[in-house]
Amino acid sequence: MINPFTDEYFMKKALQEAEMAFEKGEIPVGALIVIDNKVIARGHNLTEMLVDVTAHAEMQAITAAANFLGGKYLIGCTLYVTLEPCQMCAGALYWSQISKIVFGATDENRGFTKMGTQLHPKTTVVRGVLANEASELMKRFFVERRK
Amino acid sequence: MINPFTDEYFMKKALQEAEMAFEKGEIPVGALIVIDNKVIARGHNLTEMLVDVTAHAEMQAITAAANFLGGKYLIGCTLYVTLEPCQMCAGALYWSQISKIVFGATDENRGFTKMGTQLHPKTTVVRGVLANEASELMKRFFVERRK
Repeated sequence: MINPFTDEYFMKKALQEAEMAFEKGEIPVGALIVIDNKVIARGHNLTEMLVDVTAHAEMQAITAAANFLGGKYLIGCTLYVTLEPCQMCAGALYWSQISKIVFGATDENRGFTKMGTQLHPKTTVVRGVLANEASELMKRFFVERRK
Repeated sequence: MINPFTDEYFMKKALQEAEMAFEKGEIPVGALIVIDNKVIARGHNLTEMLVDVTAHAEMQAITAAANFLGGKYLIGCTLYVTLEPCQMCAGALYWSQISKIVFGATDENRGFTKMGTQLHPKTTVVRGVLANEASELMKRFFVERRK
């Protein structure tokens, strides 16, 4: 039997969230949090609309997932996010003890890898899932913004 | 003329915020953000009450200050916080481009210095203001919690 719930399956949904950010004029990053193949939280970047540097897609998804679960630890959960998390988001993920992080495009300037941010020792990371799609969306956003 | 608006003056107010967290059974950390000697945002740790790892004192103060200012950048502002910020909060402060961070007690395990989190290049840092008072409050909290 084919398992439809692959990392690509959920990353496509995160890309839909990123598209929603794009349409609002926000840097297009989308995130979702999944437990037992069930989406329990979604978020997309809203830093401009909310006038708040903390309103990254991942931060909103972390808060929403904890709210859904009724507990602040995200053990057993997977975060899907179209762009590599920054220091802030990786720091929040550290506190959440999330089990798995799957990201799309690498952020070579401000991603947690470059910045040396520590994740929780029990967190596993999968990189580069639908990275081209996420990168293309970002490029298209910055091209349009320059117009 | 004596300037009453010293770092100690504002840190005392941050300690009052930390006391409020203590009374709610939260790890006692308090923060405030000041511009031109005026307090524009306050926060204290609410991770237990809000069931949210992102609800650190600093995060709430950053959001509140941006809301007050009507802009997401905190240039010209100073954050006073009783405990050294963690990776997440330092990462948020990086994005905010805040001008100055004053903290009390050092967090030798999870503070941004130990963790290697990068602040914005224009941010200056003052360490150890009323550090003993902040440390004593933390110690008292953990002693009481063990009972």
